[in-house]
Amino acid sequence: MSHRIIGSSRPRVDGVAKVTGAARYTDDLVLPRMLHGRILRSPHAHARIVSIDLGAARAIPGVHAAIVGEDLPVAYGILPWTEDEYPLAIGRALYVGDGVAAVAAVDERTAIAACEAIRVDYEPLPAVLTPEDALAHPELKVHESNKDGNVSKKVDLAFGDVEENLARADVVVEGEFHFESTTHAAIEPHCAIADFDARGRLTVWSTTQVPHYLHRALAKVLGLPEDRIRVVQPTIGGAFGGKSEPFDLEFCAAKLAMIAGRPVKIRYTREEVFYAHRGRHPMKMRFRTGATRDGKLLAVDSKILIDGGAHSSFGLVTTYYSGQLLGAPYELPAYRFRSTRVFTNKPACGPKRGHGSVQPRFAIECQLDEIASQLGVDPIELRRRNAIGPDATTINGQRIGSNGILRCLEEVERASGWKEKHRKLPRGRGVGIAASTYISGTAYPIYPNDMPQSSVVVKLDRSGQVLVTSGVSEIGQGVETMLAYVAAEELGCELEAIRVITGDTELCPVDLGAYSSRVTFMAGTAAIEAARKLRGMLVEAAAAALECDAAQVELDGGKVYARSQPDRVLSFVEVARLAETRFGTLVTSGGYRTRKVGGDYRGGTIGASPAYSFTAHVAEVSVDELTGLVRVEDIWVAHDCGKALHPINVMGQMEGSAYMGFGEALFESHAFHADGLHRGPSLLDYKLPTTLDVPDLHALIVEANEPGGPYGGKEVGEGPLHPSIPAIANAIFDAVGIRLRALPFSPDRVRAALRGQGGT
Amino acid sequence: MSHRIIGSSRPRVDGVAKVTGAARYTDDLVLPRMLHGRILRSPHAHARIVSIDLGAARAIPGVHAAIVGEDLPVAYGILPWTEDEYPLAIGRALYVGDGVAAVAAVDERTAIAACEAIRVDYEPLPAVLTPEDALAHPELKVHESNKDGNVSKKVDLAFGDVEENLARADVVVEGEFHFESTTHAAIEPHCAIADFDARGRLTVWSTTQVPHYLHRALAKVLGLPEDRIRVVQPTIGGAFGGKSEPFDLEFCAAKLAMIAGRPVKIRYTREEVFYAHRGRHPMKMRFRTGATRDGKLLAVDSKILIDGGAHSSFGLVTTYYSGQLLGAPYELPAYRFRSTRVFTNKPACGPKRGHGSVQPRFAIECQLDEIASQLGVDPIELRRRNAIGPDATTINGQRIGSNGILRCLEEVERASGWKEKHRKLPRGRGVGIAASTYISGTAYPIYPNDMPQSSVVVKLDRSGQVLVTSGVSEIGQGVETMLAYVAAEELGCELEAIRVITGDTELCPVDLGAYSSRVTFMAGTAAIEAARKLRGMLVEAAAAALECDAAQVELDGGKVYARSQPDRVLSFVEVARLAETRFGTLVTSGGYRTRKVGGDYRGGTIGASPAYSFTAHVAEVSVDELTGLVRVEDIWVAHDCGKALHPINVMGQMEGSAYMGFGEALFESHAFHADGLHRGPSLLDYKLPTTLDVPDLHALIVEANEPGGPYGGKEVGEGPLHPSIPAIANAIFDAVGIRLRALPFSPDRVRAALRGQGGT
Repeated sequence: MSHRIIGSSRPRVDGVAKVTGAARYTDDLVLPRMLHGRILRSPHAHARIVSIDLGAARAIPGVHAAIVGEDLPVAYGILPWTEDEYPLAIGRALYVGDGVAAVAAVDERTAIAACEAIRVDYEPLPAVLTPEDALAHPELKVHESNKDGNVSKKVDLAFGDVEENLARADVVVEGEFHFESTTHAAIEPHCAIADFDARGRLTVWSTTQVPHYLHRALAKVLGLPEDRIRVVQPTIGGAFGGKSEPFDLEFCAAKLAMIAGRPVKIRYTREEVFYAHRGRHPMKMRFRTGATRDGKLLAVDSKILIDGGAHSSFGLVTTYYSGQLLGAPYELPAYRFRSTRVFTNKPACGPKRGHGSVQPRFAIECQLDEIASQLGVDPIELRRRNAIGPDATTINGQRIGSNGILRCLEEVERASGWKEKHRKLPRGRGVGIAASTYISGTAYPIYPNDMPQSSVVVKLDRSGQVLVTSGVSEIGQGVETMLAYVAAEELGCELEAIRVITGDTELCPVDLGAYSSRVTFMAGTAAIEAARKLRGMLVEAAAAALECDAAQVELDGGKVYARSQPDRVLSFVEVARLAETRFGTLVTSGGYRTRKVGGDYRGGTIGASPAYSFTAHVAEVSVDELTGLVRVEDIWVAHDCGKALHPINVMGQMEGSAYMGFGEALFESHAFHADGLHRGPSLLDYKLPTTLDVPDLHALIVEANEPGGPYGGKEVGEGPLHPSIPAIANAIFDAVGIRLRALPFSPDRVRAALRGQGGT
Repeated sequence: MSHRIIGSSRPRVDGVAKVTGAARYTDDLVLPRMLHGRILRSPHAHARIVSIDLGAARAIPGVHAAIVGEDLPVAYGILPWTEDEYPLAIGRALYVGDGVAAVAAVDERTAIAACEAIRVDYEPLPAVLTPEDALAHPELKVHESNKDGNVSKKVDLAFGDVEENLARADVVVEGEFHFESTTHAAIEPHCAIADFDARGRLTVWSTTQVPHYLHRALAKVLGLPEDRIRVVQPTIGGAFGGKSEPFDLEFCAAKLAMIAGRPVKIRYTREEVFYAHRGRHPMKMRFRTGATRDGKLLAVDSKILIDGGAHSSFGLVTTYYSGQLLGAPYELPAYRFRSTRVFTNKPACGPKRGHGSVQPRFAIECQLDEIASQLGVDPIELRRRNAIGPDATTINGQRIGSNGILRCLEEVERASGWKEKHRKLPRGRGVGIAASTYISGTAYPIYPNDMPQSSVVVKLDRSGQVLVTSGVSEIGQGVETMLAYVAAEELGCELEAIRVITGDTELCPVDLGAYSSRVTFMAGTAAIEAARKLRGMLVEAAAAALECDAAQVELDGGKVYARSQPDRVLSFVEVARLAETRFGTLVTSGGYRTRKVGGDYRGGTIGASPAYSFTAHVAEVSVDELTGLVRVEDIWVAHDCGKALHPINVMGQMEGSAYMGFGEALFESHAFHADGLHRGPSLLDYKLPTTLDVPDLHALIVEANEPGGPYGGKEVGEGPLHPSIPAIANAIFDAVGIRLRALPFSPDRVRAALRGQGGT
């Protein structure tokens, strides 16, 4: 099927605004009479709040409101089953950085002074700062009402007979992997502005990637009907999962605005961003993997201890994802995972690009490399032999449609010159391979309902202007461009005729937000449905005017004609007018609902997705054995996105993912001192790779058309991150023969491993 | 039929924002990097522009752009047949105040300095400043390309045999009436902000009451496709017809923004508002009216000379309206009008509340009083005897549906104590009666097309929030409240659940704007259609959940139940969710199209409307014979609006109309010196009645259910103004026996008439 716009790489619809500085981020917004809010945070990892005296703060001229936890006594949480957060601590502060009070004042300086004037009487309590400690001390409960000590969630699932298969394996590798916590480090700190008008309507502008869930949470916590609340997401400066749940500042800004009768803005300092966190969970992962002597996998057994921090966040899902998303891209005859997420007195972990599955993917892909090495099989060949096919069902019941994993392996093998490099480069230089799969959204919404997961409304009027609205969240991934593409493709108009509005709960129909790599798959499908309904009206009107059969009508880049009579051309705007004359106001809607199979949603399990993407990486590294410095020279990323609707955008996602994985592999560490204090909550201390550090990234698009996807498309935003870390680890092994099983691959760690000389 | 919300007087949806100062008017908006523009205006009534030197202006630091007429060489005009305006004068300046150049600078002060630095070399030309002069000097053409000298439009229509009927009349009164020009004097001066972004998209925020027509005109003049332009109408501080066509500042702001690459705001000074004008046309009207001795009207003959000013504006329509709208409320066996609109070198006249028909209504209602006086018939009784019925066709072919004129007469007669007062009050005090009819929109849009004249889109989502969008223009008349009313009424939800957006060509479907009293009738009908489609889905979903027949479902103020089972109650938001589950995204649209009758639009003629409102006034005045000061003590206004959707709003329109008519009767004068200079273009010189001057206004609602109207409704915004002036004139006659046939009824004029003692 040929497309006019889909598959081309036009400038992004939000591109000019972003590069010219015209885009307005939340903190750019200034409302008349706006106050500035600030949250006072606990210096203790765990403490009883004996009392809070707001008197001195309130007495400062220019301070308009001050609140404590008891002013917002309703619990919330992104998952309805684990609502364990309050906007401000009630009774106890649970980690260093936990908010205990908030103020609103005429300016930031006064708000800071007010926070300094608040007198909090803390009674420090013993804190649990590692998951082991937290499990060892169930009496030191982070959450008093939690049933099972400090266990946040436990999942124990087995498919096939793991022990029997391991027993008959020719080779079994076993190891303990440690994945350090990392955080999103979006350039834009979280910011929220709340305005509560005299009619009792609350508007919250926020750096959220889930306007719909924030809408619901605000209603719940503030006790307002949902119809009185509007959430608007301005342009966002990076999210990566770090803005995909409600945060304290949104509720505090709202409550302060309601008290003060004036708009209130709260913007996190960079330090606060680290306390808000919700980044990658640290995981301790014991993996055992067995295979036959010809490299066919027989079983994977894993036991994973997950450090959740002080709140549940998406942790229930994280715990499932730590195992459920490992069923591909290899056929596993037997598989077991036993994952336990534990509460600790640290900032809560949550979803970061590749939620829950980046960590175990590191473990399993390293073990495949070990097996290949032990068996003397080429590690790409090993992966090829085990590749699960398209139209397959994984051992844990997930149904795979399209599957381009073999082509991904082929692409990175070819492009990287693998055959000339693997085991053939001089010592200190090596190549490594890893592969993975990821979801394209989840079968289930976050709260149970049977409504569309995504909705798109398309309006066209006699100006020829097309307005596409959807509650979906543009976080830089390009969803606005994608929606414009779909509309222009289906309606046959110029891209310039399309206007897109997203992330506004008043103007847009509901979409659940930007998470789980659901956006293009779901909102794209909804947009196609909406646009095709409208297209039908245009075609009918054009056919009448052109006196031809509807099937003959061609809508082509602003021109409309019958294929049988290509000289008689109507303009798009003429046809729009004919259609409006014929049908009245032209507005249509489309939705995405997960297809049910046999009475249940496709796949059925948590982690089940309507479609799976596939990725392979080859990383080439050089290791300085004297300093332990690892330098990644190149990363070749092949990713099966089903269909690249916008190839440059797809490549950008692939490069961005590989960059982020690379950063986690070599640099990043969201770690804490023994007393619970963050080791470096600033971008000076938290090491991110700069442009000078970044390897050459080679994005290789693979298109294995997905029957249920928009134009065959599926996800690309998160999947390509997964193989980054194990590919680098495996390349380091190829270079200097050490197996690194803990992150980051810092000079210290590399030198220590080299001293042990090392690895399997 | 009973209603839940329709017919009640809840607070207006825009009320709180307006009274708390939260509403944002155009001039409240400030864009980043915004420049301030200013237009240099001609000091000559007529002059050739020999040259314009922008050099010195451009050299001033902070000046970013400067333009002249040749930079915008495309003619525009609200009516496609009479496009005779340019944003800035090309070749000749046509009146004092005609724009000749425009600048944009960093601030207003610099823009003013830049205007002062522009050197214009004018060659003064002879000007025509009265219509008589303009007709006498066809060689001094205001518009060179005009076919017939300075005649802007001529309409000569006769129905029945006027001369024969006048010949057999028992009484014939004849007189010459002069209606002085008046202007709208909205509190808010015109203001426009233009932003031309780097993607080539133009957004214009403007104090317009016709966003759709402005959209089209901007595209035409600037040479941009309509799909690249967005027009947004912020909150408006009064319009009254004075903002119902494009103005120079909108084009100039846009062009300057395109040149400067920065947003540009232009706000008229109060002086410029007077030059923009488009207010009431001065008319010289010779009327002859004949009747039988028992007071039955036989014929009306009129000849009207209309001073149009320098441009056509809506003048073609004005010329028709000066005659066509007199076919009711009385049955006229014969009627003729010969109206000629003439160009003069003064600011263009246009539509002001009661467009075109307020002036001749003054004449005819005064003549009816004369006839009653001559025949010794009570003037109310005279009107009663001649009243045209409901379901009637006027002699000029206009089809009247509902007609409450008799009840209007009865109401004012009763409420004013007419029978005890007329001819019975002491000298110096009197009462007068007048009656009228007006349209509820026009059958034809301003540019020929068969698309809906009004469109409304309604969206409902799982939050229970209802969004109503329509391009219709809220100018204070209450359309946003009306749309919210319709949605709440039809959907059975609380009014607070409704959000309304109007006047934005991007967000809203097209509506033609706020003019011709079309809004409630047309947008209301469109809203009902849209809301009923949505209601159908809610009812079906509720019926399934309540296991009842759809006909049993009651949607009642946020509660939903089956009438047979009133204890089982679902909430509105629950039903919204059930409906979204069942039908997907809930969005519907509705439109208004003029009903065609026998192949043509209902009524067929210019001035034909789908429905006619009716009004009667009684004014009670006291006249100080020493000073000539007229004081209006009370005005009783009875108005047949079909159905009062929001009674307080309806009364507000009635009072506002009566106030405005009263002001024109006694105070206002938009007049010029002999050289074409305005006599007082400021609110110090242009006398408007203040609250201290205003009579007690008594609004009496009459509801003659209109079958085609929304809930039976028809217009109220303009109709109630018509009888104000003749009712006051007739009251003055009752008080002191003088007939005033020229406006305003100033002390000078009253004293002159008293000196002549006077009148018929």
